Amino acid sequence: MSKPIYILNGPNLNRLGSREPEIYGTTTLADIEQSCQALAQKAGINLSFHQTNDEGELVTLVQEAADEASALILNAAAYTHTSIALLDALKLLEIPIIEVHLSNPAAREPFRQTNYVSPAATSGVFGFGAVGYEMAVQAVLRLLD
Amino acid sequence: MSKPIYILNGPNLNRLGSREPEIYGTTTLADIEQSCQALAQKAGINLSFHQTNDEGELVTLVQEAADEASALILNAAAYTHTSIALLDALKLLEIPIIEVHLSNPAAREPFRQTNYVSPAATSGVFGFGAVGYEMAVQAVLRLLD
Amino acid sequence: MSKPIYILNGPNLNRLGSREPEIYGTTTLADIEQSCQALAQKAGINLSFHQTNDEGELVTLVQEAADEASALILNAAAYTHTSIALLDALKLLEIPIIEVHLSNPAAREPFRQTNYVSPAATSGVFGFGAVGYEMAVQAVLRLLD
Amino acid sequence: MSKPIYILNGPNLNRLGSREPEIYGTTTLADIEQSCQALAQKAGINLSFHQTNDEGELVTLVQEAADEASALILNAAAYTHTSIALLDALKLLEIPIIEVHLSNPAAREPFRQTNYVSPAATSGVFGFGAVGYEMAVQAVLRLLD
Amino acid sequence: MSKPIYILNGPNLNRLGSREPEIYGTTTLADIEQSCQALAQKAGINLSFHQTNDEGELVTLVQEAADEASALILNAAAYTHTSIALLDALKLLEIPIIEVHLSNPAAREPFRQTNYVSPAATSGVFGFGAVGYEMAVQAVLRLLD
Amino acid sequence: MSKPIYILNGPNLNRLGSREPEIYGTTTLADIEQSCQALAQKAGINLSFHQTNDEGELVTLVQEAADEASALILNAAAYTHTSIALLDALKLLEIPIIEVHLSNPAAREPFRQTNYVSPAATSGVFGFGAVGYEMAVQAVLRLLD
Amino acid sequence: MSKPIYILNGPNLNRLGSREPEIYGTTTLADIEQSCQALAQKAGINLSFHQTNDEGELVTLVQEAADEASALILNAAAYTHTSIALLDALKLLEIPIIEVHLSNPAAREPFRQTNYVSPAATSGVFGFGAVGYEMAVQAVLRLLD
Amino acid sequence: MSKPIYILNGPNLNRLGSREPEIYGTTTLADIEQSCQALAQKAGINLSFHQTNDEGELVTLVQEAADEASALILNAAAYTHTSIALLDALKLLEIPIIEVHLSNPAAREPFRQTNYVSPAATSGVFGFGAVGYEMAVQAVLRLLD
Amino acid sequence: MSKPIYILNGPNLNRLGSREPEIYGTTTLADIEQSCQALAQKAGINLSFHQTNDEGELVTLVQEAADEASALILNAAAYTHTSIALLDALKLLEIPIIEVHLSNPAAREPFRQTNYVSPAATSGVFGFGAVGYEMAVQAVLRLLD
Amino acid sequence: MSKPIYILNGPNLNRLGSREPEIYGTTTLADIEQSCQALAQKAGINLSFHQTNDEGELVTLVQEAADEASALILNAAAYTHTSIALLDALKLLEIPIIEVHLSNPAAREPFRQTNYVSPAATSGVFGFGAVGYEMAVQAVLRLLD
Amino acid sequence: MSKPIYILNGPNLNRLGSREPEIYGTTTLADIEQSCQALAQKAGINLSFHQTNDEGELVTLVQEAADEASALILNAAAYTHTSIALLDALKLLEIPIIEVHLSNPAAREPFRQTNYVSPAATSGVFGFGAVGYEMAVQAVLRLLD
Amino acid sequence: MSKPIYILNGPNLNRLGSREPEIYGTTTLADIEQSCQALAQKAGINLSFHQTNDEGELVTLVQEAADEASALILNAAAYTHTSIALLDALKLLEIPIIEVHLSNPAAREPFRQTNYVSPAATSGVFGFGAVGYEMAVQAVLRLLD
Repeated sequence: MSKPIYILNGPNLNRLGSREPEIYGTTTLADIEQSCQALAQKAGINLSFHQTNDEGELVTLVQEAADEASALILNAAAYTHTSIALLDALKLLEIPIIEVHLSNPAAREPFRQTNYVSPAATSGVFGFGAVGYEMAVQAVLRLLD
Repeated sequence: MSKPIYILNGPNLNRLGSREPEIYGTTTLADIEQSCQALAQKAGINLSFHQTNDEGELVTLVQEAADEASALILNAAAYTHTSIALLDALKLLEIPIIEVHLSNPAAREPFRQTNYVSPAATSGVFGFGAVGYEMAVQAVLRLLD
Repeated sequence: MSKPIYILNGPNLNRLGSREPEIYGTTTLADIEQSCQALAQKAGINLSFHQTNDEGELVTLVQEAADEASALILNAAAYTHTSIALLDALKLLEIPIIEVHLSNPAAREPFRQTNYVSPAATSGVFGFGAVGYEMAVQAVLRLLD
Repeated sequence: MSKPIYILNGPNLNRLGSREPEIYGTTTLADIEQSCQALAQKAGINLSFHQTNDEGELVTLVQEAADEASALILNAAAYTHTSIALLDALKLLEIPIIEVHLSNPAAREPFRQTNYVSPAATSGVFGFGAVGYEMAVQAVLRLLD
Repeated sequence: MSKPIYILNGPNLNRLGSREPEIYGTTTLADIEQSCQALAQKAGINLSFHQTNDEGELVTLVQEAADEASALILNAAAYTHTSIALLDALKLLEIPIIEVHLSNPAAREPFRQTNYVSPAATSGVFGFGAVGYEMAVQAVLRLLD
Repeated sequence: MSKPIYILNGPNLNRLGSREPEIYGTTTLADIEQSCQALAQKAGINLSFHQTNDEGELVTLVQEAADEASALILNAAAYTHTSIALLDALKLLEIPIIEVHLSNPAAREPFRQTNYVSPAATSGVFGFGAVGYEMAVQAVLRLLD
Repeated sequence: MSKPIYILNGPNLNRLGSREPEIYGTTTLADIEQSCQALAQKAGINLSFHQTNDEGELVTLVQEAADEASALILNAAAYTHTSIALLDALKLLEIPIIEVHLSNPAAREPFRQTNYVSPAATSGVFGFGAVGYEMAVQAVLRLLD
Repeated sequence: MSKPIYILNGPNLNRLGSREPEIYGTTTLADIEQSCQALAQKAGINLSFHQTNDEGELVTLVQEAADEASALILNAAAYTHTSIALLDALKLLEIPIIEVHLSNPAAREPFRQTNYVSPAATSGVFGFGAVGYEMAVQAVLRLLD
Repeated sequence: MSKPIYILNGPNLNRLGSREPEIYGTTTLADIEQSCQALAQKAGINLSFHQTNDEGELVTLVQEAADEASALILNAAAYTHTSIALLDALKLLEIPIIEVHLSNPAAREPFRQTNYVSPAATSGVFGFGAVGYEMAVQAVLRLLD
Repeated sequence: MSKPIYILNGPNLNRLGSREPEIYGTTTLADIEQSCQALAQKAGINLSFHQTNDEGELVTLVQEAADEASALILNAAAYTHTSIALLDALKLLEIPIIEVHLSNPAAREPFRQTNYVSPAATSGVFGFGAVGYEMAVQAVLRLLD
Repeated sequence: MSKPIYILNGPNLNRLGSREPEIYGTTTLADIEQSCQALAQKAGINLSFHQTNDEGELVTLVQEAADEASALILNAAAYTHTSIALLDALKLLEIPIIEVHLSNPAAREPFRQTNYVSPAATSGVFGFGAVGYEMAVQAVLRLLD
Repeated sequence: MSKPIYILNGPNLNRLGSREPEIYGTTTLADIEQSCQALAQKAGINLSFHQTNDEGELVTLVQEAADEASALILNAAAYTHTSIALLDALKLLEIPIIEVHLSNPAAREPFRQTNYVSPAATSGVFGFGAVGYEMAVQAVLRLLD
């Protein structure tokens, strides 16, 4: 299979490691990309990894994944809870969509209970911290096999 | 009258024709622009047509319309339901604002019942698909006459 | 095509022109029927135009349209917001249903946000005043073409 | 002044005296009309008294009052709580509107807390039973004086 | 016993058989009346069967039943969910009231969860289609026995 | 009958005439007391008239009315909407309680829709301005007769 | 047909006859089983009748009915309003499910308005007391015929 | 490490494979236990696997896990949404708790949005079907390592 | 220990014995003070007992208790449900606070479900009538021992 | 008096002392039974003490208390907030019911504000920890005296 | 300008410095008055500073400010969230009203989100502790200049 | 201290002076920057002033402030009410955050009552128009001193 896996990250994930470490740990997003790339490489598949603070850019990246990706792993961070535009974009995809969150949103503020990603997602991995990304990649690889 | 009509389109409308055709049909946004330009041209009026996935850019385009346009036709798509910034920008305009939706939002999900465009819009054309844009242009031409 | 277009009008529209002119303008319902008849006549199609203050009678007229009409243009006025009987009747129809409102209900009181017509309507024209009826007739004529 | 006072009564008030006497007493609507007519006659003013079970007919009577009456006394009974059509009709009137209820709606079921008459009414007399009608007539006479 | 059983039917039930057959089946209201009349006749009791699209007329028929009937079987259709006037009329009755629905309202739209008939009804038969009317008649006959 | 009528007035009514005259008119509370005293005097009955800005004092005055008054006319102003203590005090009374409001609370802000006086009141007179007090006194006199 | 009809009863129905007789009457559950068995026997069909106070056991009995029964008559009592596990079990069944309640839940406390049985039930018989079981059995026999 | 991993399954999961296969697939719970046991065995760790339809028994099993287990994998099925007793039991545990669901609850009925397991769970794996159990076991093994 | 126990009573408790005896019994507040004083005296501790209809005075008494009391027993009556000022005052205290109610508020009107005392109270005794005060004094004595 | 006092304890109370000691203390349920038995023995009355994690079993024990007990002291723990079956069982009792909670539920999570025990309970003792059981036994003994 | 600035303080602010210092700091109300008086004195303007625990007295002070003050600085503390009487009094003022809070109410309990002062206030200074009073005085001086 | 103060402005503030002057006045954003720069310069501190219509860009500027600023003054305009991404970014900051609004949001539309900035802000200055910025700068300077 030649199409890459897309991993997209939403707002503030570029600050991972510096921000609220008691909730999110000290691993950085670069660390996460590295371990995901390692897993993909071992499986002989490309992996396209992005982060943006911008809702519009995230929508555009999801549209790109509709054409270019074999699967989408998405941690939309705060846009998970506010972006209907993101939901509309995700509905364009006919590939597996795996929602990842570092922490378990169910144990947090009420406004994080609204979720526009889950209704369009195939499945989800929540609260495993950085390990959740690897679990998602492994599940995708198994799925694509 | 020399000021152009503005037609602004929100997120995911660039994918029109590929996305959920059972709801939105197979006409593309380029098709829509073409028939609107034809109508405007026949009436001897300019028409400025834009699409963006970005809330901030949409706000800026609405601000531009405040200065440059004789009327605004707006299909804000998902931002219709989440963007108070858009509402604030629309309040800057002293020209007719016509809200267009391809489908009838009233028949869709509850979160599409919140609407920040309608309170600032003069009028609306819903559920006529691509034809709705032409109806809006014709109504504007009649109005500007 | 020989079946007429039905235009049905709900409660208080018989007082159009005398009632809250700052919202609804001074055009009367007779004026509106006249311009709609003119458009229909030019297209060689019959047009059946009714007004009633009575919910039960409006339901019966919609049932009649189910058998007799090629398309229904409906301004149900206040019954839009309270009549489930009307919704049940509209579900009998297999013809295009176009909802018309003189003003934009979205910019009015909260109790006008409940809408039992829209879920059954194909499309809608809101806030164009009397002109909205003509736009609806033109859209129907194009559709029936 | 030659225009009559209108007193309009909504659904089930024709059964007054037979229905839930522990809430409404045993006076009939005919008794009420009689004492109101007596008061009006003494003041040399006509009084037009109607009851209907039909929402549409009540709307039509209110429209008639817009043209014909000097003041409206209205006990809309159950339509008080469900009829937006009635509210729209009441907004046509530029004369005093006095809302009457035999019992005090505030002490009854939650669904009687919604009220579409009060927002259009000038004033109200609640919970005085049949006497409330006479108080309303006296207040109107004083007002018209 | 000489007083008849009343069976009253609300809006759109006159179209039974033509309307949404996947929910309501193809039996007509005439078919239903016929089987109910047969059951009543066999038991030597009269049966008065009516349908109306009009809320006011339905209220008047219920008032008539207060005087004339030994029991009331009522399928108020959409007015079940919107008519407080109907509830007020039902409170006039001191005879058994049996609520019938062809389908099970609990499995339908949220706005059908509001019910102004049930609080005044003795009992109910839901979701048996046309058979539910016969069950209600049999239960009434047993009760009156 | 020797027990006086109590008229109690809640917070800010001491400023009547100076406060929001477009809602409440220019009559002062002293004017109102004077016309009520005149009516009572003519009927040979005492009238005890009080105003307080203090919830606790209003509760104490209502308790006093439980022992000393033949009827209570109460305009609790803002405490109508917030004081459960007032409701508890009103439940001590076994005499007629008439709720008066200068304006019609139903046409004002949502937080004025909560009402702790009405559930304990026998009846109410709303929106007649200062005249409402006189109507209440006349109704009480008729009642006590 | 050889598969039996299942009648399952939820918590506290074992105390029928002793509990709140003004709502439920004095018939015991044993009386009810007896009259249902009589009806079934006459029709030559087996009837399996159970009661349990335990949610888990009720779920297991419903699962058993999925394999063993030709129809299910279910009075889940309080679990009607709280058990999603019961709803999930009922979805396993491809046979008619008839919901029975001795009283009419619509006329009771708000927390009895939540209902997890109705969405999975084919039909319902409410408020006929013990007679409702017999009506349900007769309806099932007619259905299975 | 000698303490086993506990995998606990709630109501109706014993029917997996027969129930709503379009949502849950055809794999049985025995299949799932087998693949989990294989993973655990390879890692030299015991695995204790249970299913119950009973809330009380599930609570008791969770209490047992508090003493006996090194980690808990829990698919509480319907009790996820209704059992505060389960939440209280889960708070006794000082070991990792991984919530598993075969489907993605976020894409289902509103009453499945209430969740009493997530607030006490460390992490979650949703919507991977039977594979989700294996992912959870692998994550636990990595964690215990 | 030399600091006294404070017992504070809110609005309308001065009328205990005369007010709604079917809910509150015929014991007066003087009776209650007497039995509490007896208990305290036997334990050699002072007891300061107050009642006020005034929210501000109750706040001031609670502030006084912050300096002067060893424990606070509080029956705030209606202010329990409306006074955030009371809650703010209670937060000043570092001594045991025991909330007492004569009846069980949970079995009364919805507006009595809001409670600003409980969040600051250590414990509560509800529904034991006058005996509840003695139970609270005994619990305090045991606690202070 | 020969009938025993029943003390029933709901889910997770068997783990008292091990579970969240900062909220519930370190006393075990056996300690509590011992001090309650001592109090009962001294008064020459039997005391029947039970704990169960099972809702159905708790319902059955309450039914047993309806026949066998002179008073019921109930700490239903989590089932307090979810079990309507428990409420229905409690309504069978004509003896005093005293609700006990170790902590004050009013100061905890919102979902613990729903309470199905309080509406059927005579009185309640909240937030005294283990001492609350003794207070309840003493109150019952006084009551039975 | 000769009219003084009024600074009014609501319930519990007399305990400032002793109460919840982690939220409000250790400055006392006397300290605050002192620094405000210093600022006013330097500007040659009088300053009238009051505190009360009583809602009625606070209302009366606001009424006094309507006549006597050039500007009002108001920290209504808990009455901010419960007093409609206060709002009605504030509407009497035609001078600048500045709302002050020591902490930021938006970061506190939900019941502090209801605010009856803000709708009548010109502006607000929140969360600056005691410094906020000085900022308000400076802003007023600048405004009055 | 060498780190600058950041002042960040959200959507539509670039149009200040042209937009709804009856709410916001005629001062432009350039005027505001000028007076703030003057204050900062006099205090010998740098001031970094930005405006953007873009949510993502605003998030990035807040992240920049986390590293570069000594204090943040933020007028997020419409994003105040919709951006959880902004809240997440603000949580990165360990410096004072002062929320500024030109008008008082509490006196505006309900959707402006949701606020994602306040929970992360130290303090706020609302409704002083352009002067509010200067007050915020002065407060920051005092704080940094």
